[in-house]
Amino acid sequence: MTRLNSYHLPPENWPGPDGAATLDGPEAKHLLGVLRARAGETVRLFDGFGRHGLFEISAITGKARAELRRVSEMLEPAPACGVTLALGWNKASRRDWLLEKGVELGALGLVFWQAARSQGDMPKEPKESWRDKGVQAAKQCQSAWLPELAVVQGGVDGLIRVATEHDGCYVLYEGTGPEDLLEPGELAAGRVLVVLGPEGGLEEREVARLREAGFKTRSLGPRPLRWETAALSCLALAHHALLKT
Amino acid sequence: MTRLNSYHLPPENWPGPDGAATLDGPEAKHLLGVLRARAGETVRLFDGFGRHGLFEISAITGKARAELRRVSEMLEPAPACGVTLALGWNKASRRDWLLEKGVELGALGLVFWQAARSQGDMPKEPKESWRDKGVQAAKQCQSAWLPELAVVQGGVDGLIRVATEHDGCYVLYEGTGPEDLLEPGELAAGRVLVVLGPEGGLEEREVARLREAGFKTRSLGPRPLRWETAALSCLALAHHALLKT
Repeated sequence: MTRLNSYHLPPENWPGPDGAATLDGPEAKHLLGVLRARAGETVRLFDGFGRHGLFEISAITGKARAELRRVSEMLEPAPACGVTLALGWNKASRRDWLLEKGVELGALGLVFWQAARSQGDMPKEPKESWRDKGVQAAKQCQSAWLPELAVVQGGVDGLIRVATEHDGCYVLYEGTGPEDLLEPGELAAGRVLVVLGPEGGLEEREVARLREAGFKTRSLGPRPLRWETAALSCLALAHHALLKT
Repeated sequence: MTRLNSYHLPPENWPGPDGAATLDGPEAKHLLGVLRARAGETVRLFDGFGRHGLFEISAITGKARAELRRVSEMLEPAPACGVTLALGWNKASRRDWLLEKGVELGALGLVFWQAARSQGDMPKEPKESWRDKGVQAAKQCQSAWLPELAVVQGGVDGLIRVATEHDGCYVLYEGTGPEDLLEPGELAAGRVLVVLGPEGGLEEREVARLREAGFKTRSLGPRPLRWETAALSCLALAHHALLKT
């Protein structure tokens, strides 16, 4: 089965009732310059917030600008269940890769926070390049939703503020006993926040503070996993658990 | 807790009853050149087949050569359960990365096979660099076992020969219905073989042939996952299921 190429049209550019849209920037450049699309062809557009549809190219009005006409539109409702990962900030070379996997495996959000053992300083807000990475991944896997990207200031206190928006809050901690093995079903019970430390792990006082605030400590087993392996395992377990609900 | 640095000593060099071992090559170079270890210090050696132990450096006899004396030794029995992934060959830039994750998540084996839609030609035997990648990962996660690495010739027929050594055989196929969602428990029931296609997927006739030979088709859900995401999800589910048994 051939799949139509997907392009990201941000929500602020999504067409109103007249159905006329303009695609420009890198997405249009790819459509016109790489795929050499012509007027009359059909493409799939998505906004990353559940809206997607088929559009016909009505006119090419620049090297990186196309006018499109909506043929059909669908709205995928916001997922009621899923995981937001709160990842301890790192000089991680594999952050991009994790953003991609977060989209593929249907993470609700990827949130970075500054832990006591974080290396390097977190940016003040999510970088544009992170969103681009997510968009590329969503095009590949045809997801209509993009995970929410955020940086949470204030260390553990920041996480506790974010917790109020969630139905369940967990912290993966290597000091946790085998009886507290993460249960995939827990990850599919509503909107769930899962906190991971940075490379080098969490400090005990960070874990204690989260516990006081109602976070439950969980383990991914006795073997030390790399930062991105722990994150990815969590996403894979959640993805699978959600398919069963 | 500080962990001792681990070095790989292949089984053929593992010491006999006298306990005297020689470490040379890149491992010794790292020990002596990078960590600047001196006589009298203790390191951990492992052979990748379950044997590991503490060794004291008795003499440094070259830039990349150290004589060691065994202090203690442990044998971790071969895992009775786990997954061997048979991965359709690909020009995949993420193969190295998957080798690393295979070690971390305790894969029994990583096997490559030439599928109808494979791109590029598989080497005749596993590359030395793959083993090196595995060794590096095992040092990091302190695993005493390295996954078996192999290339299986003969396409689907080769896989069917490999199947005889396994307790359960599955093929991940996107044409599989939602009722055949992969069950993590299946991955922990003995020695299990899981076949994945290459990027581009399996051909129907390949799946039909595997089915005839007793392989069960399984799904990872309706969303198209990248090659390495599917592989990694399978490893993460197996790792988790094995912790529960």
